[in-house]
Parts: sequence; C-alpha cells; structure tokens
Amino acid sequence: MNFRIEHDTMGEVQVPADKYWGAQTERSRNNFKIGPEASMPKEIVDAFAYLKKAAAYTNTDCGVMPAEKRDLIAKVCDEILEGKLYGEFPLVIWQTGSGTQSNMNVNEVVANRAHVLQGNKLGEGKTFIHPNDDVNKSQSSNDTYPTAMHIAAYKMVTEVTIPGVEKLRDTLKAKAEAFKDVVKIGRTHLMDATPLTLGQEFSGYVSQLDHALKAIKNTLDHLAELALGGTAVGTGINTPKGYDVKVADYIAQFTGLPFRTAENKFEALASHDAMVESHGALKQLAVALMKIANDIRMMASGPRSGIGEIFIPENEPGSSIMPGKVNPTQNEAMTMVAAQVMGNDVAVTIGGSNGHYELNVFKPVIAANFLQSARLLGDVCVSFNDHCAIGIEPNYDGIKRHVENSLMLVTALNPHIGYENAAKIAKKAHKEKTSLREAALELGFLTNEQFDQWVRPEDMIGGLK
Amino acid sequence: MNFRIEHDTMGEVQVPADKYWGAQTERSRNNFKIGPEASMPKEIVDAFAYLKKAAAYTNTDCGVMPAEKRDLIAKVCDEILEGKLYGEFPLVIWQTGSGTQSNMNVNEVVANRAHVLQGNKLGEGKTFIHPNDDVNKSQSSNDTYPTAMHIAAYKMVTEVTIPGVEKLRDTLKAKAEAFKDVVKIGRTHLMDATPLTLGQEFSGYVSQLDHALKAIKNTLDHLAELALGGTAVGTGINTPKGYDVKVADYIAQFTGLPFRTAENKFEALASHDAMVESHGALKQLAVALMKIANDIRMMASGPRSGIGEIFIPENEPGSSIMPGKVNPTQNEAMTMVAAQVMGNDVAVTIGGSNGHYELNVFKPVIAANFLQSARLLGDVCVSFNDHCAIGIEPNYDGIKRHVENSLMLVTALNPHIGYENAAKIAKKAHKEKTSLREAALELGFLTNEQFDQWVRPEDMIGGLK
Amino acid sequence: MNFRIEHDTMGEVQVPADKYWGAQTERSRNNFKIGPEASMPKEIVDAFAYLKKAAAYTNTDCGVMPAEKRDLIAKVCDEILEGKLYGEFPLVIWQTGSGTQSNMNVNEVVANRAHVLQGNKLGEGKTFIHPNDDVNKSQSSNDTYPTAMHIAAYKMVTEVTIPGVEKLRDTLKAKAEAFKDVVKIGRTHLMDATPLTLGQEFSGYVSQLDHALKAIKNTLDHLAELALGGTAVGTGINTPKGYDVKVADYIAQFTGLPFRTAENKFEALASHDAMVESHGALKQLAVALMKIANDIRMMASGPRSGIGEIFIPENEPGSSIMPGKVNPTQNEAMTMVAAQVMGNDVAVTIGGSNGHYELNVFKPVIAANFLQSARLLGDVCVSFNDHCAIGIEPNYDGIKRHVENSLMLVTALNPHIGYENAAKIAKKAHKEKTSLREAALELGFLTNEQFDQWVRPEDMIGGLK
Amino acid sequence: MNFRIEHDTMGEVQVPADKYWGAQTERSRNNFKIGPEASMPKEIVDAFAYLKKAAAYTNTDCGVMPAEKRDLIAKVCDEILEGKLYGEFPLVIWQTGSGTQSNMNVNEVVANRAHVLQGNKLGEGKTFIHPNDDVNKSQSSNDTYPTAMHIAAYKMVTEVTIPGVEKLRDTLKAKAEAFKDVVKIGRTHLMDATPLTLGQEFSGYVSQLDHALKAIKNTLDHLAELALGGTAVGTGINTPKGYDVKVADYIAQFTGLPFRTAENKFEALASHDAMVESHGALKQLAVALMKIANDIRMMASGPRSGIGEIFIPENEPGSSIMPGKVNPTQNEAMTMVAAQVMGNDVAVTIGGSNGHYELNVFKPVIAANFLQSARLLGDVCVSFNDHCAIGIEPNYDGIKRHVENSLMLVTALNPHIGYENAAKIAKKAHKEKTSLREAALELGFLTNEQFDQWVRPEDMIGGLK
Repeated sequence: MNFRIEHDTMGEVQVPADKYWGAQTERSRNNFKIGPEASMPKEIVDAFAYLKKAAAYTNTDCGVMPAEKRDLIAKVCDEILEGKLYGEFPLVIWQTGSGTQSNMNVNEVVANRAHVLQGNKLGEGKTFIHPNDDVNKSQSSNDTYPTAMHIAAYKMVTEVTIPGVEKLRDTLKAKAEAFKDVVKIGRTHLMDATPLTLGQEFSGYVSQLDHALKAIKNTLDHLAELALGGTAVGTGINTPKGYDVKVADYIAQFTGLPFRTAENKFEALASHDAMVESHGALKQLAVALMKIANDIRMMASGPRSGIGEIFIPENEPGSSIMPGKVNPTQNEAMTMVAAQVMGNDVAVTIGGSNGHYELNVFKPVIAANFLQSARLLGDVCVSFNDHCAIGIEPNYDGIKRHVENSLMLVTALNPHIGYENAAKIAKKAHKEKTSLREAALELGFLTNEQFDQWVRPEDMIGGLK
Repeated sequence: MNFRIEHDTMGEVQVPADKYWGAQTERSRNNFKIGPEASMPKEIVDAFAYLKKAAAYTNTDCGVMPAEKRDLIAKVCDEILEGKLYGEFPLVIWQTGSGTQSNMNVNEVVANRAHVLQGNKLGEGKTFIHPNDDVNKSQSSNDTYPTAMHIAAYKMVTEVTIPGVEKLRDTLKAKAEAFKDVVKIGRTHLMDATPLTLGQEFSGYVSQLDHALKAIKNTLDHLAELALGGTAVGTGINTPKGYDVKVADYIAQFTGLPFRTAENKFEALASHDAMVESHGALKQLAVALMKIANDIRMMASGPRSGIGEIFIPENEPGSSIMPGKVNPTQNEAMTMVAAQVMGNDVAVTIGGSNGHYELNVFKPVIAANFLQSARLLGDVCVSFNDHCAIGIEPNYDGIKRHVENSLMLVTALNPHIGYENAAKIAKKAHKEKTSLREAALELGFLTNEQFDQWVRPEDMIGGLK
Repeated sequence: MNFRIEHDTMGEVQVPADKYWGAQTERSRNNFKIGPEASMPKEIVDAFAYLKKAAAYTNTDCGVMPAEKRDLIAKVCDEILEGKLYGEFPLVIWQTGSGTQSNMNVNEVVANRAHVLQGNKLGEGKTFIHPNDDVNKSQSSNDTYPTAMHIAAYKMVTEVTIPGVEKLRDTLKAKAEAFKDVVKIGRTHLMDATPLTLGQEFSGYVSQLDHALKAIKNTLDHLAELALGGTAVGTGINTPKGYDVKVADYIAQFTGLPFRTAENKFEALASHDAMVESHGALKQLAVALMKIANDIRMMASGPRSGIGEIFIPENEPGSSIMPGKVNPTQNEAMTMVAAQVMGNDVAVTIGGSNGHYELNVFKPVIAANFLQSARLLGDVCVSFNDHCAIGIEPNYDGIKRHVENSLMLVTALNPHIGYENAAKIAKKAHKEKTSLREAALELGFLTNEQFDQWVRPEDMIGGLK
Repeated sequence: MNFRIEHDTMGEVQVPADKYWGAQTERSRNNFKIGPEASMPKEIVDAFAYLKKAAAYTNTDCGVMPAEKRDLIAKVCDEILEGKLYGEFPLVIWQTGSGTQSNMNVNEVVANRAHVLQGNKLGEGKTFIHPNDDVNKSQSSNDTYPTAMHIAAYKMVTEVTIPGVEKLRDTLKAKAEAFKDVVKIGRTHLMDATPLTLGQEFSGYVSQLDHALKAIKNTLDHLAELALGGTAVGTGINTPKGYDVKVADYIAQFTGLPFRTAENKFEALASHDAMVESHGALKQLAVALMKIANDIRMMASGPRSGIGEIFIPENEPGSSIMPGKVNPTQNEAMTMVAAQVMGNDVAVTIGGSNGHYELNVFKPVIAANFLQSARLLGDVCVSFNDHCAIGIEPNYDGIKRHVENSLMLVTALNPHIGYENAAKIAKKAHKEKTSLREAALELGFLTNEQFDQWVRPEDMIGGLK
C-alpha cells in the first residue's frame, strides 16, 4: 500500500496515500483495533456534515470566517451527505468516549478534500482549510459529538422509526375494522374465556402502537436540544456572540427538523438524558411489538395442532413435505429485534449514567445502540407490515370451532335458566367431553331452538370497541 | 391458633378465626409460600379500596346495587384507607399473575368486615354483602388489578417521587445561584480542562432534574387511563351501561387525581405499556441521580488526597481517628437506589412484554417493581436533600488551588503573547513542575502584573449560564 | 416513647429506651428514611452473628481478647441466630454503601445485650464489652460486610435455591420417565413438526435444570472466599498474625460450609465479582424456569380452545361457572420470579461494576438483590413442584387428537410410496381439510391396513432419550 | 444487474447471476430488509463450513453418502474457511429465529460452488450436489444453527477473549510485582484511608481477571455440547445410527476443540442455556474491566487538578496547548465495551428465556450478541494492554504528596503516644490545614526524629500480598 506522511502535534504518521483522512484518524485506526472496522455509524458522520456546514455558515455570519472558506467547507459537507466520500470514515465505536477522533476524522477529510477541490494534489502544498482552525472553528469534540448524536437520533426516529410504526399501525387498524364482526374465543391466563371479536383484539394492538408513538414523540423535544456552542466544558469558550442560537438555526434549516440550542449546555455535554429518555420510549415500542408478534404467531399456529385462528402469508418454504407449515418468520424477526432493543436500553442506561464532571465519555456506545434500535424498529415494522400484517386473514373454521367448543358460552344461559342449571350443563359437557348443546338438550333444560336463540357469542362482546 | 371454616366453590378451608379474609385468600397463602409474607404492596391494597368504593357508587348509580350495600362497602373501604385493617392482606407478589387472589382478598375482607359492622360475629350467620356478587360486582380481577396498578402508581409518582425530586431540584437551583461566582477548574475525561463556575456545574444538575420531571409528567396521561369496565377480556361483559366512564369519575373524585376510563380496554388488560412508559421515565431520573451523586462525591473526596472542592455535611462518624473523613453516605444510598431502579426497569420491561391474548399475567411483579422504584426515588431525593445537598459548601481553598495550579489557564495568554509562546510556558511549567506564573516570568514573556491582569479564570467562563 | 441517651464520637443521641441498638444505629435510622424500615435482609444480620462470633474466637486464639469477652460475644451471637433479638435491626438497605451502619448495629446490639446478660440495666453503668474495641476487634466494616454477604449468599444458595431446584428436577425426571411412551406432536416455530414423546420433552427440562445446578455449583468456590482479615483497605492492618485464615476456619466450622480466606483481600473489598458470578448462574436458572413454565402452561391451555395436552392440578377456583378453567397460577408465579431475577441481575451487575479504589460501596444493594433472587428461586421451585409439577398428567385425548390430525406423519410414507406421492397426500388433506388417512385412501396409494402399519408416530421418535 | 433463475418449492426466483446463493437465500434477502445487509456474523458462516464438512464425512462413514460428494462438499467448506467465498452470505440477523435461511444460504452456496468446481457454469445443467439432499443431509436447521452457535462461540471465546484477557492479566501481574514497594494512600468511599502499595492495588485487578478467566472456562463444558444429530425436534429423525457422536468427533477434529454430542438434544434445540451461561461469565469479565479501567483513569487524572498517582501512555494529541492532558482513551473504549456487554447480556437473557416447545427461535440474536461481546472483550483487552497498561508508571511525586499529606498516617502514632494524643494531632492538622508533622511538633508530643521513625507508611501495609 502506498502512504503519504501527515502530521499532528505529536509528529508524523503514515496514512494511506489515496485517503483523505489525516494523522489523528490514522492514529485512532491503529490504536483502537476493536471489533470490525468503520463501525462508527454512518448517520453520525452525516450528522457531522450537517453541523460542520452549519458551523461554517455561523462563523461567517459572526464575522470569524471568510465566505470562501465557508463555501468550500459546505461543499465537502454536501459531498459527504451525497455519499460521495463513503470509505473515508474508518473509525470504530470503541475509541475515545468523547468521539473526538471521529470529529477529527471529519475535520481532516473536509480539509483535505477541500484542498483537492481547489485543484491541489492530496498531501502536497499548504492547505487553505485547516482541520482544527477552520473546520472545527468555534467547536470542540465535546459539543460537536453530542450535537451529532441528537441530529442522527432525531432523524432516524422521525424518518425511519415513526413512519415504520405508523405504517404497521395503519394496517392493523384496517384489520381491526375488517375483523370487527369476527367473534372468537377470548383467552386469559392462556385459558378459554368469554368471547370478543378479532377486530377488538387487533384494536388493542393499534392502541399500543398509538401510545408508543405518542411516547416517542413526547421525547423529541428534549432530543431537539443541541449542545453546539458549549465547546470544551459548556461555557462556550471561544465562540462568537450569538453563535449557539444561530448554529442551531442553521442545523434546523439544513435538516428540516426543529432543532434549537440547548438552554443548558452543561447538561448537554455531561449527560445524555435526552438519548436515555428517547431510547426509553423505543424500548416501550419494543415491548408492544413483542406482545403483538407473540399473539399473532400463537393465533397462526398449527396448521392442525395449534391454535389456528388466523392465516399469515407464506413467504418462504416452510417444510418441503408439509403443506400449511407457514413459519411465522416475520414475527421471529420482530421479537428478536425487541430483545435487542431491550438489551440496548441497558447499554444506553449504563452509558448515560456514567458521565463525570463536565463530560460524559460513553457517547459513541450510546449513539450506536440508539441508532441500531431506531433503525431496526422502523425496518422491522415495515418488513412485518409488508410480509405479514397486510396478509393476515381470519381462519374462520378454526375460529368457529373454538367458539363453538368453548364452555364459556354457557354464561349466556344464566338469565334464561339460572346460574345453577347453566353450571350443571357446563359440568356435564366438560365431564362427558360433549358440546354444551348436547349436554343442555340431554338435561332437558331447553330446546334446540332456544339454544340457537340464546347462545349467541356475538351478544357477549359488549359495546366496547 | 383458632380457626373457622370458610367456603368457596372448591369446598371448605380453615381460616384463622380472627382474620377477615376468606377461603380464597387462605388458599393463596398456602399455595404460594414464596418469599416473605404479605409482600403485595400496601399501596395496591389501598388502590383496591378506592376502586371498590367507586364501583359500589357506580353500581348504585346504575341501578344494580342498593344504596345500603354501597354504603357498607364504602365504609369498609374507608377503614382500609385509614389503615384500620392493616394485617388483613397477607398475600404475596408471587401469586397468580392476574392478581386475582389479592382482588379476592379485598373482596373477602370487605364482605366479612361489613358483616361485623352490621353487628354480627365473624363466620356466623348469613352475610348481607357477598364478596363476589357485591364487592366484585361489575368487575373482574382482570380489570380491577390493572386499575389498582394505575391508581397506586399515579399516586406514588405524584405524591412521593415528584415532590421529592422537586425538593432536591430547588435546593440545587439555590446552590447554583449561590455558587455562580465560584470559578473552578473544569474537567473532561476526568482531566483538567478550561474553567467554569461551581454554579454552572450545579445548573447542569438542575437541568437534568427538570428534564426528568418533564419526562415523568409526560407519562402520566397514559397512567391516568383506567381498565375498569373492561371486566373479563376487555369487552365489558356484565357491566351496566355507562359504568366505565362513571367509575373512573368516582375514582378521580375519591383520589383527587385526573383518572379517566381507558379508551381501549383490550390494551388496558393485555398490556402494561403505561407502566413500562412511566417506569422508563423513572429510570431516566435514576440515570440523572447517578451522575449527580457521583459528581458530588468525587468533588467532596479527600480530605487531603482527593479532589476536595466542596464540603458535604457530616452526618455520622466517618473515622474515629481521622477528622475530615466525611463519607458520602447519602450519595451512596442514592447511587444504590439508582442501580436498583435500573434493574427494576428490566423486570418491568420483561413482565410488560409477556402479555398473551387478552391478559398480561405479570401484573404483580410489574406493580411491585414500579412502586418500589417510585418510592425509593422520592425518598432518596428527600434524604439526599436534607442530609447532603442542603449543606454543600464550596471548599474555597481546594477550588483555588486547583484553578491556580492548572496549566489550562495558559490559554488566556494567547491573545497577548501568541499561541506559540503560551505553549512554551505551559510545557516548561509541566516539565519543571512549576506554576504557569513562574514559568512565564522565567521565560520573560510577561511581568508579574501582566500575569495577574491577563490570567483571570473568571474571564474564561463564558456568557452561558 | 421513652428514650435513653447513647453516645458516639459525634455526641449524644436519643435511642428508644428498650432497644439494644446504640447511637450510630439511631443516627442511620434518622438519616436514611428510604423505603420501608428494616429492609436490610435478616440473613445478613445472621451472617454477622456468625462472623462476630468467629472473630471473637480468633481474637482469643491470637491472644488479643480474653476468653470471658469471647464467650459473652458468642452468647449474644447465638441469641441472634436463634432469633431472640428479632426487632433489634431496624436499618435499611439504602444506607452507606459499605454497610458500615449495619455492622455497627450488630456491634452495638451485641455490646448492649452482653451488658444486660451480665446483670446490668440497659444504658446504666460502664459496659464490659465495647462495640468497636471488642465486638469489632480485628475487623472493619469494609471486610465484615462483604464477608457477611458471602456467608448469607452461600447459605441461601445451598440451603434454599439448590434443594428447591433439585426437588423440582427430581419430579420432572420422574415425569420424563413416566411419560416416556406418550407420543405427541412436536412443535417448532409454534408450528406442527415431527413427533416426540412427552417424556422426551420433559427430559429437556431436566437437562436444563441439571445444567443450571452445575452452573450454580461452579460459582460456589468463588463465593467461599471470605474478605475477613482485610480490614480497612485489604492490607489487614490491625489484625493479629494468622487471623484471616483462622477466622475463616471458624466461620466454616460454625456454618458447616467450606469457607476459606480470600487469597486476595483487595479484590474481596473492592469488587463483588463473586456475587456477580453466582447471580449470573441464578439468572441462567431463571431463564430455564421461564422456558419450562411457559411450555407447561401452553400445553395445559384450554380446556377446549387451547393446546390441551396435559392436565395440571386445580389449586384454587378458576371460574365459578366454567369447569376445567384451571389457571396456571404456579407457572405465573414462576415466570414472575424469573422476570424479577433477570432484573435483579442488572442491579447486581451495575452495583458490582462501580467499585472504586479500595472499596465497592454498592454492597447492600448487591446483597439484597442476590438474597431475594436466591430465596425466590428456591421457594418458587418448591411451590411449583408441590402444587403443579407433581400433579401433571397427560391429557391423552388431546395428545392423540393432535398426533392423528397432524400432517407431519406423512413423512413416514416416504420409504413406501415415495416422496412425491406422500406430498400429494398431505396437500390433498390440507386443502380438503381431511385426515391423511382419508386422503391416502382416496388417492388409492395404499390400503387402510397399510396406513395402520406404516404411519406409526411411535416409530418416528428416534433413538434419542 | 444480471440475473439467473433459481427454483425452490415455491417457484422461481431471480438471483444475481454471479452469486452462488440460490432461491431461498434470495427470498430471505428480499423479505428481511432489516438493518444493514450481511449482518449475520461471519463466524457463524465459518462454523457452518466446519459442520457441513463434518456432516459429509459422517454421512459417508455411515454409508449414506458417496465419498465423491463428501469430498466436493468438504472442498467448498475449506474454501469458505479460507475466506474465498466472502460476499456470498448476504443475510441478516433479523430473519427467521431458527436461522434456517442462513443454513440454506450455506447449503445453496456449497451446492452451486461444487457445481462450478466440477467444471460447470453456474445455473446451467443438473447439479450433482443438492443443497437439501446432500449438503443438508442428516441435518435440520434446528440442529445445525445451534451447533454453529456453539462452534463460533467456543472458538471466539478461546481464540479471542481468553488470550486477550490473559495478555492483560499478565501485564497487570508484572505491574503488581514492579509496584510492590510503592506505598500510596488507600481510598475507601473515595475518601483517604490507610495506605497500601500500588502493587497491592494492581494485585486486586489481577485477582479479578483470574477469577473471570476461571468463570469463563467453567462455562466451556456446556458450550462444548453440540446439538447436531437432533435434527428437526431433537429425536434425531432421519439420522443414521451413531451419527451424532461421530459428527461431533469430526467437528472436534476439524476445529481442534473438545466438542462432543449433547447428551440431551431436546434441550440443545429448545434452549440456549449454554450461551446464556457463557455470556454470563463474559458479563462478569465486563464488570471487572469496568472497575479496573475506572480506577486507572481516576488514578491517572490531572495532570494538576486530579488524583495524579500514575502516568498512562500518551497515544494521541490530548490538547494542543496543554501538555500533560493525556486523555484515558483506552479506558474509555474499555468501559464502553463493558456497557455494551452488560446490555448484550440482557438481550441474550431475553432471547434465551423465550424458547417454546421444541425450538428456541431467538438463535441469531443470541449468537450475534454473544459473538460481539466475546470479540470486543478480547480486542479491548489487547488494545488496552498494548496502548495503556503496558506503559503505566507510578507518578512518584503525586503518590508521595498524597501519602505525606494524609492525616490517616496518624494511626501509626497510637502505640507510641496513645490514641487520644494522636487524635489531637490529626484534629489540629485538619483544622489548621497543616501537616501531621507540624501539628505534632507544635503540640510537643514527639520530636522530628521520632516522627520520621514512627510514621512510616511502609509499615502500615500489612503482610498481605
């Protein structure tokens, strides 16, 4: 491999000749060979691009950067956002806990790429844009990385998670409506209980998702607060007047999201309660999805020896010899994602609780876990929606068999023949393994016609939606 | 021990002669000898008292219960709330997951106590109030227990947790104001950084607590939804028309809290996302408290060989021979509570995610963990406030020594003598282990007076609050 | 309430007149009003009694304590172990993280009780036994509390957890043997699969419990290491020569358990990896119990509309009108305990990871969570065993129906009529919702007799145990 | 992109023309667009290569596969292990929970690659090796995937985790020896305590790592059990006699690791307690590393305003202007890894506890979390070792200053001038902020020479290692 020499305050470093990154990035690559390369989430790099561009604009507005530098920096940031500099960000999550080295990675790439955009050769001649003095101007790792975390997290939640959940929620709502007259047996403690409709059952899932969406949205206000402008310790040392408000405005403008400067920068650097708060809501969503996916796979179980009340789409061969073995694979993906998110919540919690003094140094692990959770939840909702939920259909035979078999329907006879006689019918049917109808007729408490007239599951489902 | 005979549908049971509980409670006592007796939280029992009374009132309003029964039931419920029936609720958390047996415990105690209030002897004569037909009228364990969970949780959060946090927040806010001019060294990565004020540092804690309070309050709306009226599976079978709305109104009236009937009863029985959501916010509070308590104990560490920037109150003998060894015991209680709440969050999450079909049967474990977290957090904030926060004072000597020693102050010289010369001073001071002043004077870059004039930490703390 | 005056190095304290505890205990009561009173586990107090007695014996052996003092201290320790001083240990978990105050509570109670045993009145006259100089001789909170943790944990695990698990394991093993010829349908992905025997299914549970027992026992060696002798920071300052080995021997002798002195006392004070390790194994047990309890309740579900392959005992009324609604309440208690233990594991982990320098100050929270887990796991295994496992019986009708209905049996025809024809039979049966036999006969691939001869589930269960 | 047509039992699928995978892999790619592509760990693919080769050998030995097929299969498996087929395994973790689709991915790639190795063109002509009938012969996803999990986990733990930990342990042990005479102040509750040596402090870390290694090794026996031979539900249907034992022998031979067939295959498919057990030990290691990394960064804090007792290597620029600001970046990476592993433990626990009937369908999420933890722990130990631990040196100035300043040394005077007088000295020094020596001389309790002779921290460090 060819190398060029880059410098930082510690001296010379050999860097791959064709890469834009510089000395500090290369040091980090060599010093942190932990897990697979380039594990720092791409979304964090993109968020840095937004904020570096915003900082450049603000610096120019505040009179501390010439427009020419601003435009060059902005141009490279746009290239990053367009994916043109893919491969220039090789660092890992498991670096310094402030994410300094990823901040420097972006600074170095922007500076060197700007140098080339100006018609120079990489590594030759004096650079016009300096990674620290220009790209990082009025910034510190300590306020840029947490800003990048909020930008990336907010974007992921609003662009991937929420739309995914809403898509699934809409489908389940349509199913709840479509199945509103499908009377089925209820189950509590996994045991037969009084009936309800399949639509009512699905309405519970819709309600869970609506509440999860509301909970997630409740956390966005905290996530909208940006640390940028706090610089090294939160005091904003080395920032021009008005910088923090303005830079947040630019970020809001560039991303189209309602970011604003954090009222308290000391919190914003030293803790990540906004990430903890928002991931807590993601975990609530995971809890809801676990319930929903479990219910649906249990109801679809069979084809002969399970519950068999619904059909789910067959997306891949289940068994080569056994027709009807439709494995609930989307449910399995969804429940695995739920387990992952619940685990990630603990990693985020532990990382979030361990800030000391003016800085929390678990930033990259918090960011990575959050972004994984938000991505997986959104993706799995879409996947589950498209490949499972949308195709759910009642198995009318199974539903009917369970309702008719159930002894719980005997409660419908109470007003007509009294509780005592109704209980006698149920006990007889249970003991003799017959149907309620058979037992009732045999005991002579009512006629066949009366049974039809009185035992109507559809009258037992209440007025509740 | 003396016994009397009680009956249920399975037959006779021997019950301690002087206890109001009946057959089903006794069965549960015998069948679930798991952990210490009577572990079911008292707050759940109290919440049942509220809801049984509200149900009685609603039943009468709906025309399905005579006023005489209502008044008797209400009277016993009031006795429970006054603590007069302490000792009558012996059941454990680790019973049926629907909490049915604790619901029956309340039903039985109310019925038997009413019998005695009417002038009868316990266990003799026919009872006027029946545990199932009257006390449990228009109810099911499946909707009462989750209602009790929400009542107990909402009350605990608003009566214990939030006031406790607010008390501590107010104290820390006053400290932030009091310490606003105390310039100290900042620390990032635990390493010396640019200065800030002690007041700024404390303002970060205030901001964390304000955000935690906001996050907790955001969850109350979901917690205000009551399952009551859903009965067995959520359909509301066996409830009179209008019952669910009215019963929630009565509960709101009796508790003074804004409860309302859950729009979707199926969710309310089958999942406990409201508890998961609210506990998630409690966990965020725990994360904030862990940070705050850690910071304060590190800053108080010493007296000679630690950081030594603040004094905390001495509440108990630290060391019999070593004056000044003030162990940060309140901080230790607080961080232990934080660890507990983080663990409880996982228990609540797992319990919450495992509902099946129409019922979640992890209700008692969710309730117990939630109530423990909310109680401990509120209590520990008050304890920490009264025995630590309120007495925190700056250790001016320590703060001054650290600021003056710090090499970071050299950055103040950049505008006057240039970055290069400033760096030379710092390097010389670091290498020779002298002060910046000594190194600067020795290098001849400035005079003693200039040093006083230029190196002013109070000018480095920015305009941020 | 009557009070007497007690003193410590900070001055006078009012203590309830009839209580043996002294000034430091009372200070802790007043300074830590966090959660319910006396939450410090009783097992910790008992463990202190063992170790205080052992320390007294060792001190005498080492020539630093007269035998008369030893005997008095030992006598009070024996009273504690006999439960005679119940009510004298009012402190909470949420105190100083070293457990110092509970150590002092024991020291004070022993000293004052000894005073009374000598014929004096509490609070009058000079005491012969001093809480610090005698009861705490050659000790520090920093080595006594972790020693008490190991004693209490080891005892609980070996006296409650392991016997409970073994009892359940033995029952399940007997069931596995009893059910070894009961052929039933297998299920993977919750879907019908090839058959196995009910005994084979249960053998999997036995294997899980055997592995869990082995894992738990693997951790006991670490738990057998005692910190005692390390005193304040692990160096053993103020202990006589040979003290650490000898005191561990006495503890081993008094408890009948193989305790020994920790080779490295610095680890033993500053970390609790032994508790983390052992609780990790308890968590594995919780994972196994969750699987087992879930399987059993799913197999018992019904009575008509569930899986219905086994019967479990009916311990309490399920439904007043519906015979056969046997709620799996023991399973629910077991899965709730599992959720609790999984949560506790996180609390133990967080507490365990936060030791600093020479001391971990999350000791009480680690101890309390560990002891709760170990107790609940042991208790719930016994409860589940006695009230559920022991009475499990196959529901032969249900098992038979599922096996016969299943389309998976068609695989048995492959060797006789070829894969293609076998698949045709299955597809026809699935499509027309008939039995395999009907479809096979209709297609004319074989005779009724051949079907009986070839399709034998009992031949499909392999040679594996 | 060019495509070719592949078939499975559901029909035709377009597959990228140049890829070896087939229809089922392609279906999975399309049906599970969840998170980044190809997230299924590479180690799982490699483990499949070992087991497919072993199965082929066993099948031939058992007389059910011609040697020619065996050799072809083995050849492709070797290519996989040599990394030659990188890029052929595009599937994600979030697929079916049995990992079936990754099993099929391997089956398809082996079959198609064998076809090409025989001189054919991909997608043309009839294949000699069939993915199901040959590559998957005597196997099921249900026993291959868990087998791959154990192979991959065992290899990672023994090849990456344990060597990494041992390397760090050895370095810390050498440091403990090197620092055995460096007397420093001890700290409990973060407060000054009696002295110990820096070597003693480090010996505690060594002991933690030794115990963690022992705990990890204790779990390997369970992990050595292989599910292979259990096929669909654990009964071993469709396996030749003796297959299970023999195939495990081959895997042991090919990997050089002591694998053996699981005694109970039902457990091996339906639960993953072995993974839970082993990850529990990894979590214990994480707990230990958190403590060690925290201690070291606190001791290295400063350079002026922290604890400053040790120097750690400077690996990257800390601050451009502040010499001596050496951020503890390796410690930060290590504590972030610890947080991740603690979170992963919860994901593994939840996944592990949710197996149902004959199959646990959280296999990929368990595998991925386990492998990440084991990899990160090993890597971070090496990184921390090479870039931090190995270069740790005492800061003798800082250590000396803290020891000499400390008031705790006064305890050394007790035997000479009595406890009361010693306490007077300490109180005076504390109050007047002077040294013990000054206070002692001023009080006239001893001479300067006596002070030198009696106050010797090196005599206070006990006889313990």
